[in-house]
Amino acid sequence: MTWKHTSVSELLKIEYPIIQAPMAGGITTPELVGAVSEFGALGSVGAGYLTSVQLDEQIKEIKARTSKPFNVNLFVPEDQVSFSIEDVLRMSAVLKKMNMPLQDFSFTNEANHINYEKQLEVILQNDVPICSFTFGIPSKEVITELKKEGRIVIGTATTVEEALLFEEWGADIIVAQGNEAGGHRGTFKGSAKSDACIGTMALVPQAADAVDIPIIAAGGIADARGIAAALVLGAKGVQLGSVFIPCLESGAASAYKSKIINSNENDTILTKAFSGKYARGITNDFIQHMKPYENLLLPYPVQNEVTKPLRIKAAKEQNPQNMSLWAGQGLRMINDSFSAKELLTKLIAEVNAVTESSFIGRQ
Amino acid sequence: MTWKHTSVSELLKIEYPIIQAPMAGGITTPELVGAVSEFGALGSVGAGYLTSVQLDEQIKEIKARTSKPFNVNLFVPEDQVSFSIEDVLRMSAVLKKMNMPLQDFSFTNEANHINYEKQLEVILQNDVPICSFTFGIPSKEVITELKKEGRIVIGTATTVEEALLFEEWGADIIVAQGNEAGGHRGTFKGSAKSDACIGTMALVPQAADAVDIPIIAAGGIADARGIAAALVLGAKGVQLGSVFIPCLESGAASAYKSKIINSNENDTILTKAFSGKYARGITNDFIQHMKPYENLLLPYPVQNEVTKPLRIKAAKEQNPQNMSLWAGQGLRMINDSFSAKELLTKLIAEVNAVTESSFIGRQ
Repeated sequence: MTWKHTSVSELLKIEYPIIQAPMAGGITTPELVGAVSEFGALGSVGAGYLTSVQLDEQIKEIKARTSKPFNVNLFVPEDQVSFSIEDVLRMSAVLKKMNMPLQDFSFTNEANHINYEKQLEVILQNDVPICSFTFGIPSKEVITELKKEGRIVIGTATTVEEALLFEEWGADIIVAQGNEAGGHRGTFKGSAKSDACIGTMALVPQAADAVDIPIIAAGGIADARGIAAALVLGAKGVQLGSVFIPCLESGAASAYKSKIINSNENDTILTKAFSGKYARGITNDFIQHMKPYENLLLPYPVQNEVTKPLRIKAAKEQNPQNMSLWAGQGLRMINDSFSAKELLTKLIAEVNAVTESSFIGRQ
Repeated sequence: MTWKHTSVSELLKIEYPIIQAPMAGGITTPELVGAVSEFGALGSVGAGYLTSVQLDEQIKEIKARTSKPFNVNLFVPEDQVSFSIEDVLRMSAVLKKMNMPLQDFSFTNEANHINYEKQLEVILQNDVPICSFTFGIPSKEVITELKKEGRIVIGTATTVEEALLFEEWGADIIVAQGNEAGGHRGTFKGSAKSDACIGTMALVPQAADAVDIPIIAAGGIADARGIAAALVLGAKGVQLGSVFIPCLESGAASAYKSKIINSNENDTILTKAFSGKYARGITNDFIQHMKPYENLLLPYPVQNEVTKPLRIKAAKEQNPQNMSLWAGQGLRMINDSFSAKELLTKLIAEVNAVTESSFIGRQ
């Protein structure tokens, strides 16, 4: 038995219990997901913002690249997002005053639910082996349907209470997302305000004690020490996001990649400015400029719809000041750009070294 | 070599690299500090709010209980705390409206500095072997004077930048305080607002890479898994606070002890309501009632002075709703009250077991 043989490796049928985090917004290209899975870790599609047609294409592209397991992550929609068109106009006026581009507003609750249902259909039709969920728990019917034929369901929890709910609902594995994690907080019970967010060091052992299914640790893990420490804490696998952003196969804008490489542990902040839900990213002008308008922010995903043109424009212009630069708190450990294979080869060698040379190995 | 032989054990001349956190406000009684040090770990006096006379008495009591090393922690005062008497009257009016007790206001910057100087004198006179600092870096003269005759100086850092400053100034060891930690944030450069606080999982390896002196990990560590994980992350020792609060020897009010035993990982919050500086504690009525008055909070330690009578009254009445219930995010792991010796015996046995039985031990 070495560190790589865990219940998570076994359930997911992968060689290394290392998950490339599902990062929505174009980062998790089929090239990235395919390369990670082909290596023997688990690639994940951040499908939250994809149409079912886009998702179908991406899944087919991944399957052309690897026959090994991969994961698709979906955002569970809220039953009903409440907002008025006056609220939208007010936020649009704020963005216009800041010279931000706008588009015709088209969000509806119905379309939001239909897209999720269609995404689920695509997952079933293509027989995706692993499906993870963020922002909520899918219905029992959906979980039962997914689990038929041995598909694995992973839930994202930010508290022990959320982990217990996912377990009760039939999830196979829990991602315990600590406060250090980049991107959106998966919180769906209670507040994701930063003073309430639980750190990975505290969340992982407490979640591992509370549930009987395995825990994957996420948040602040960016090298071999973090991977080994997470396993010592009781996790059976780890999920890493930020380290994969500068990968050659990642779809992140080059200005975003270079921000990841050049930023430090204290450059991130939790903000609702881009999407209406708290997410951790490298602070920039847009986040700072929106601070006075916090009370006008629209609920997720309406705010996300309204800020989409500005993010598209920022990506085109390689302007990091208006991009959502989602990133975790391990940034000082990320200093270079690799292929996914090079990155994973390096990480695995380092985990082997840490586990062999540490005081523990010398017992 | 086992896990307990580290550069921190060696520098501090202790058997186990486990530090009982300096918790100010009466928790770290001479009984507690003495018992922890006598066991072979490091007891610490939270001396921030003690007069030099009280500190002198406590040090003598500890020395009567153990001949082994112990630590005294001081709060480094700011050069000049700016506030007006009108601000104080405004906050007093808020507290009075909430039926909170008041006292004659007596804080002055001069008295604040004189107390710190006298505390330092007491430390030197009594030849305290280890001295740690929070809220800032002492002057080079103070560090030089302390380090004479082999005394050890420990600095508290919440970012890599702060760790580097302490190292440059001559500290021997850094406590890297993650966001999960209970009590006051030690932050002295930049903001301690919660969305900027770095988790232990991310802070420890990045601080360990950046400085050449050893790191002690603090924040969210409440059992053997956390201790072993911190060492894997690159720390050479750990500092635990919350687990010692319910100890038989701890001076915490019994209502506070029972709150620690009965609370969970998501019951804490970062608040400035009690002292004017951010600190993590179990949320209660006082914190909630003060939320509308955030803009009126006085700077540290003036707010602390003004709320002192209410905390004294709450302790007398065993009313946890008006106490500062400082605690970290590992609370679900703390379920019982032990003597310090029982607690440490149990922890050490569990660390031995974790390090022997984990996947790493089986390499």
